Amino acid sequence: MKTRDRIIQASLALFNERGERNVTTNHIAAHLKISPGNLYYHFRNKTDIIYSLFLSYKGLVDQYLSVPEGRALKMEDKMGYLEAVFDGLWYYRFFHRDLEYLLDSDPRLRKDYRSFTLQCLGAIKAIVRGLEAGSILHMRSEDEREAVALNTWLVVTNWMAFLKTAHADDDENGDIDRQQLKQGIYQVLTMEMPYVEPAYQETVRLLREQYRPAPVSMQA
Amino acid sequence: MKTRDRIIQASLALFNERGERNVTTNHIAAHLKISPGNLYYHFRNKTDIIYSLFLSYKGLVDQYLSVPEGRALKMEDKMGYLEAVFDGLWYYRFFHRDLEYLLDSDPRLRKDYRSFTLQCLGAIKAIVRGLEAGSILHMRSEDEREAVALNTWLVVTNWMAFLKTAHADDDENGDIDRQQLKQGIYQVLTMEMPYVEPAYQETVRLLREQYRPAPVSMQA
Repeated sequence: MKTRDRIIQASLALFNERGERNVTTNHIAAHLKISPGNLYYHFRNKTDIIYSLFLSYKGLVDQYLSVPEGRALKMEDKMGYLEAVFDGLWYYRFFHRDLEYLLDSDPRLRKDYRSFTLQCLGAIKAIVRGLEAGSILHMRSEDEREAVALNTWLVVTNWMAFLKTAHADDDENGDIDRQQLKQGIYQVLTMEMPYVEPAYQETVRLLREQYRPAPVSMQA
Repeated sequence: MKTRDRIIQASLALFNERGERNVTTNHIAAHLKISPGNLYYHFRNKTDIIYSLFLSYKGLVDQYLSVPEGRALKMEDKMGYLEAVFDGLWYYRFFHRDLEYLLDSDPRLRKDYRSFTLQCLGAIKAIVRGLEAGSILHMRSEDEREAVALNTWLVVTNWMAFLKTAHADDDENGDIDRQQLKQGIYQVLTMEMPYVEPAYQETVRLLREQYRPAPVSMQA
């Protein structure tokens, strides 16, 4: 693997594990057993590494959320989108965990994250339309579609932070696992349930059960 | 006003205005024209000031979300809760803007914020039950009540961060006003709409119109 790619990969692993704020470029270099000078040859600073990770994340999500042309969407598509989006949140989990701070530290990232948000909202709406074409969802108006897409985005992007604050383990790291993260799918499906066509209500309800979160009060 | 209260008040104003991370105890002391020593007499450090602000915020929210005993809830109650909660978000807006960082910096705050979250979720459920008693909302099960309450919490607590990321003004401060913040009420009402009893659907729809956000794509 090229050094540049190794730096990217190691940074992502360390950021996810320890939190971006607790990892310096020196830590990354030491972890890879390369000199700081070698790292700086590839990236001017940590901000540049984070920006590269954002581009990979964005690339992944763009791919995940692409809507097939010329056909309506099926239940498998719908569940595929949800699984993929939460996988993306998991792989790049340092990112939404500390988004405000990262955006404050890099105006370029702030600007591009904004486009990314608008693009994702557009993709969510396109998916909703595809599911309407597939007679799985029913929306009464573009207003409703717009507002439900935005609520979906708000729930998805806040789920990680919620888990982190609701699970106040004394152990600060490694407290959330992938399965807990995927329980966010339960919340998204709950939100969509009122718009699911009667013929699919039972199917969605059964699928949702697979993601049921443990009661919060028992996570103490 | 007592010095301690003046410190609290000035800190809140400065944190909201400039972001907590850009304000030091020296800034606060200078702003109040008191010596750093005088400030340290009242608060050991900034973390202590933030914790005091959290306690005030928590006190305010507890009061806002209290459910009157012995009667069902009315539409005015419902709108009162929403207005109050978003007012609270506005007054203490530095808090949710940078929550992860604040919780990482203070284990005591992390622990107490967790209780606060669970308490708020309980209060939201109690309000939903009150609105069901008032024949305004209808929930099919405790599961549904629980999941909708959690989605409401996720939307409310993420609204500020969304506005900050969706409005990527070059001007980083002062970009969100109270009216924009209150547009979050539009999102909450959209989420509740499917559970509103038919007799109240039109009323809620009209109320919701007052909070309609400007289209995101036009905020560029």
